[in-house]
Amino acid sequence: MSKSLTKRSEDYSKWYNELVVKADLAENSSVRGSMVIKPYGYAIWEKVQAQLDKRFKETGHQNAYFPLFVPKSLFEAEEKNAEGFAKECAVVTHYRLKTNPEDPTKLMVDPEAKLEEELIVRPTSEAIIWNTYKNWIQSYRDLPILINQWANVVRWEMRTRLFLRTAEFLWQEGHTAHATRQEAIEETVQMNNIYAEFAEEFMAIPVIKGRKSESEKFAGAEETYCIEALMQDGKALQAGTSHFLGQNFAKAFDVKYTNQEGKQELVWATSWGVSTRLMGALIMTHSDDKGLVLPPKLAPHQVVIVPIYRSNEQYNSVCEVAKQIKLNLENAGVSVKFDDRDTHKPGWKFAQYELQGVPLRIAIGPKDLEKGSVELARRDTLSKEFVQQSELVSIVKDLLLDIQDSLFYKAKAFRDAHITEVNTFDEFKNVLKEKGGFISAHWDGTAATEQKIKELTKATIRCIPSHFKNEVGKCIYSGASSNQRVLFAKAY
Amino acid sequence: MSKSLTKRSEDYSKWYNELVVKADLAENSSVRGSMVIKPYGYAIWEKVQAQLDKRFKETGHQNAYFPLFVPKSLFEAEEKNAEGFAKECAVVTHYRLKTNPEDPTKLMVDPEAKLEEELIVRPTSEAIIWNTYKNWIQSYRDLPILINQWANVVRWEMRTRLFLRTAEFLWQEGHTAHATRQEAIEETVQMNNIYAEFAEEFMAIPVIKGRKSESEKFAGAEETYCIEALMQDGKALQAGTSHFLGQNFAKAFDVKYTNQEGKQELVWATSWGVSTRLMGALIMTHSDDKGLVLPPKLAPHQVVIVPIYRSNEQYNSVCEVAKQIKLNLENAGVSVKFDDRDTHKPGWKFAQYELQGVPLRIAIGPKDLEKGSVELARRDTLSKEFVQQSELVSIVKDLLLDIQDSLFYKAKAFRDAHITEVNTFDEFKNVLKEKGGFISAHWDGTAATEQKIKELTKATIRCIPSHFKNEVGKCIYSGASSNQRVLFAKAY
Repeated sequence: MSKSLTKRSEDYSKWYNELVVKADLAENSSVRGSMVIKPYGYAIWEKVQAQLDKRFKETGHQNAYFPLFVPKSLFEAEEKNAEGFAKECAVVTHYRLKTNPEDPTKLMVDPEAKLEEELIVRPTSEAIIWNTYKNWIQSYRDLPILINQWANVVRWEMRTRLFLRTAEFLWQEGHTAHATRQEAIEETVQMNNIYAEFAEEFMAIPVIKGRKSESEKFAGAEETYCIEALMQDGKALQAGTSHFLGQNFAKAFDVKYTNQEGKQELVWATSWGVSTRLMGALIMTHSDDKGLVLPPKLAPHQVVIVPIYRSNEQYNSVCEVAKQIKLNLENAGVSVKFDDRDTHKPGWKFAQYELQGVPLRIAIGPKDLEKGSVELARRDTLSKEFVQQSELVSIVKDLLLDIQDSLFYKAKAFRDAHITEVNTFDEFKNVLKEKGGFISAHWDGTAATEQKIKELTKATIRCIPSHFKNEVGKCIYSGASSNQRVLFAKAY
Repeated sequence: MSKSLTKRSEDYSKWYNELVVKADLAENSSVRGSMVIKPYGYAIWEKVQAQLDKRFKETGHQNAYFPLFVPKSLFEAEEKNAEGFAKECAVVTHYRLKTNPEDPTKLMVDPEAKLEEELIVRPTSEAIIWNTYKNWIQSYRDLPILINQWANVVRWEMRTRLFLRTAEFLWQEGHTAHATRQEAIEETVQMNNIYAEFAEEFMAIPVIKGRKSESEKFAGAEETYCIEALMQDGKALQAGTSHFLGQNFAKAFDVKYTNQEGKQELVWATSWGVSTRLMGALIMTHSDDKGLVLPPKLAPHQVVIVPIYRSNEQYNSVCEVAKQIKLNLENAGVSVKFDDRDTHKPGWKFAQYELQGVPLRIAIGPKDLEKGSVELARRDTLSKEFVQQSELVSIVKDLLLDIQDSLFYKAKAFRDAHITEVNTFDEFKNVLKEKGGFISAHWDGTAATEQKIKELTKATIRCIPSHFKNEVGKCIYSGASSNQRVLFAKAY
């Protein structure tokens, strides 16, 4: 398979699809809309998981596991909440396959093994979890409940794209229960902040924190907080959400607690999640026409070492030095892959690790042995230099920090250059067409205007940024008065 | 809820069920056969996962993720392999719920959203994975493939028990592909050894390594290796299996590679797994009538500190010292929970942590402050002693090692005392009735005899132990000649 990718400028979407497959991140499976996450892609996801899990635990959360299946009746209890998403979902109706009597090489669903009540493969777990919390919560002593779950969920999507929108995806979903409204809101904001810090510090993705408009928020929530990122093609991507659910689920599932005064109160709730969609954001923020570019903090291997040789003798002496270099780097906390396979040529390896976004590449050959040097290549800038082996560890450590930072600042500069303030609808349409990115504009606060703008331009309100100050102005569409700008964009 | 449990001697099964729920490990959910794994139970499972994952990676395996759903046709390709388990499974037939037009408060499956091909919720992933490997393997350069998956699977069980047998459970499944028969067999044995070492070193569960008989092995395997443990009630529990699959799946899914001579060959396969069933083994190996007993290496908290006080002033001064003790222990690598909640009395806490199997409990009160002491209680022996605070860290570290070892040796002594050699079928039935445990007996090697013994006694061949030497003898049932003893037992 050729390693060269379609150029981003030619067809961004095609570039993305090719990159995901050729860099061995993921591929489509024989199940419509479900992907296979390949080992290299999964190794990045494991790093995402480990970091988030650490932060969740540091803030007092524990992991647990709830059933994959949700009885249909629980969705009925929640239905008014779930309307936005609960309709297109995988439904289990039977529990047995049997040999087809008309053709014993085939299997068929056994019509006698029909479930009394259909089971839904969870699209999200609020219903099953709140139906469980009901039994866990009696008194204020039982609160707060701070639980997270790492799980697979299924939403029956008609148009799917690897990582960005798949029928089955992996995610984490936090579900917390609180005695007071204030505490639940603080939790919601705290988790959105954790997502933002993680995105910026580890993924090197600058994000804007804010709240969703009424039409864009999760149907079951009173308020949805989110982080919004900007991709290289000027489209926004929602990278994480944190919902203040008010007492909606407590009402739907009748979850009450006895407060310190002995009175029954409804419980307050939050939920928050990020998914394998983050992988899509990671790819589309940093990568280039040569392939993936990974921030060192999430790279499965931060450094790859490729030996250069013509003879067995050269191979042996080069490998000996390379192994020592690997050891020195690992002792300094750097993760290293030494690709000493004799089945692939150095040129193939160079192209492969460029495609896979390994932050630094060390090539070492017979001449380097003489000079005590190595060739050190940096993936993000594609620059190369010769470095003395004796200085290698400290140079590598510095470079890894530098790459992590410069990926973030490069993405931030791009993002900041793509936030445009407009004051008329003509300007709005023009910026959207010519430049893309986030458009900061006044909006009259009505769902009708939001809907109309979406119909006319495909742009939606991504968020009402937390850092935006009140400002008096006029809605770009209706001309009605407005006291705050919001951010519009076309989005993934 | 009362903390006292049914005694093991009264009703072992009831004791187990009560313990799982009261120690906050897991509970039944509103979905038939599916459990909720509660935070405390899940924290133990996370420790199991972390250790196994480390061992898998050290032996060159990588994690990946494959789809939850398996198209029915893939089971047809594999059917002859899967006959043993693939029949009772959750079948997805539709992809939409809609409001019931006859009662808008109800949902119904939309009959128009019927899938063209039914999807099976994976009971195991051989089919979907080998259908994927087919595209990954062309040449000997692509081999071996060493992949593991952490996932949920579903088998439609009619009689379920928390952890031991549930419709949905969590597990890991390794699926490897090799160029040669020899390499695949070595992999199969290696992974069974890893399971055995993990069980003994971390879970403190002594296990017998061996092979399954033809009728007990996985239907798709040429050979199934396993580890077998013995529970306190004299029943065996299969704690892990590793399958040498031969070329069965390569044939079913047409997976060939070009060898170094340019010839096409079928690929050799293994699969291996352990599941949340291990939690059941852990509980039933060590626990007592007071509740769970945990080996320190898998305990979410190795030490719990409970403050004793009558006044606010006492509370403050006790907590100050307790916090310092916690810090000292944590700096020595010990995991500590300090339960300073004022909402629960010390007696309640003592009972709770006994029930939850925390290996060591430290109680500290005003008198201890005067004397520079603490009360240190050991969960496994229920013994208590006063210890000087200055010596606490080193005593705790020694005791944790001692508890880990003595749990293993206690279980091993019990297990070894419950392996009985018999030479007649009367003896066999008698031992099974009076004593239980493993029975070492000659068997003629036929499935017919095995089946007959099972019908008459409910005992099955647990394994043909690897360490058993050849020995000439006569089958206890048929009297036919035999050259090796095997282990029988009643089993979970």
